[in-house]
Amino acid sequence: MAEQVRAIRTRQAILSAAAKIFEERGYQASTISEILTVAGVTKGALYFHFQSKDDLAQGVLNAQNQNLVLPERAAKLQEIVDIVMLHTYRLQTDPMVRAGVRLTMDQMAGDLDRSGPFRNWAVPVRERLEKAQAQGELLPHVIPAETADVIVGSYAGIQSMSQALTDYEDLTTRASALLRHLMPSIAQPSVLASLHMGEDRAAEVFHEASAALVTDEPE
Amino acid sequence: MAEQVRAIRTRQAILSAAAKIFEERGYQASTISEILTVAGVTKGALYFHFQSKDDLAQGVLNAQNQNLVLPERAAKLQEIVDIVMLHTYRLQTDPMVRAGVRLTMDQMAGDLDRSGPFRNWAVPVRERLEKAQAQGELLPHVIPAETADVIVGSYAGIQSMSQALTDYEDLTTRASALLRHLMPSIAQPSVLASLHMGEDRAAEVFHEASAALVTDEPE
Repeated sequence: MAEQVRAIRTRQAILSAAAKIFEERGYQASTISEILTVAGVTKGALYFHFQSKDDLAQGVLNAQNQNLVLPERAAKLQEIVDIVMLHTYRLQTDPMVRAGVRLTMDQMAGDLDRSGPFRNWAVPVRERLEKAQAQGELLPHVIPAETADVIVGSYAGIQSMSQALTDYEDLTTRASALLRHLMPSIAQPSVLASLHMGEDRAAEVFHEASAALVTDEPE
Repeated sequence: MAEQVRAIRTRQAILSAAAKIFEERGYQASTISEILTVAGVTKGALYFHFQSKDDLAQGVLNAQNQNLVLPERAAKLQEIVDIVMLHTYRLQTDPMVRAGVRLTMDQMAGDLDRSGPFRNWAVPVRERLEKAQAQGELLPHVIPAETADVIVGSYAGIQSMSQALTDYEDLTTRASALLRHLMPSIAQPSVLASLHMGEDRAAEVFHEASAALVTDEPE
């Protein structure tokens, strides 16, 4: 059991190092030897967990959505707002999330499958839209699969623009503006009136999700 | 004068070659010698027009918005829809535009200023929103600068998602869906009812703009 804990920690150290290097250099310019140095592990340990640079990148991409769980809300549209706002907050503060986004948006990493994260984001958003539809939150014309892709795709661009213009500093402002532009085409007026999508929602949701986090790994 | 025409053509050949290589390989993996081979020009000719790879990339970025002029419309919001739809059509068909977008979205090309295209797109959109506001097309709460950034940023992400999932094949569908989600938060209902933002708008606008194009360069 102690061995298993050690293996999990080693894997985590390698992923953190990979995230740091990928975010700084981008996929193509990153090398496994640099990641080894930053992680402080042996080559053998690294290859036990990850077989290639591509495998490391996939590991970082998979790691960005883990760990934080959002509380359920009566309005499923509020849950969608909260997913966006939580990601916004983490993007401003968590290197793993930043590295994942960089890899996703990076059109240079041609041999890496970048469609996964778009799909991975679209699924939970679509599911919540379907629930929202079932409980009468949505305007009658909304098609959950289409609207989910619009939300995920448009947010991806908003974050990219914020990164290019201010290195994410204005991301909460931009995310809030995007949501205020999209939600009136999605939500019934009575639901719209109750949605919290102001800038302060980002930190609020993050602190709520962090408080709910159960750490089962010994520190 | 003949010399000037030749210089313009050489510059154009170099830019086309650079666009092709940048789109295929990405900024970092592209080399000037490959661009020289594809362009079929001498090193001297290339360095006469462009001083570095970065300079070439800026040339491609600047070239993507040129040449096509959209006819004026009574509704300025229709002009914004048409800008988006024209770009959508060109992205599906023009290598210079595809290369420009690849360079813009490419978070690996860290030493290249990618904020320019976001700003360049936001300006004409904001100007049209201001005119739209002056002639009563907009809902009262709309702030042109904020809404322009939402349109430009969200479209950037929609195109990136389309590129990752279908290599731009479904971009007109996605662009139309985005516009139908954004415009109800922007336009007065009477203007909204008259906007053409269906998928077929992309080809329609391109053919109209192409017909209006005055070629002052001899073929």
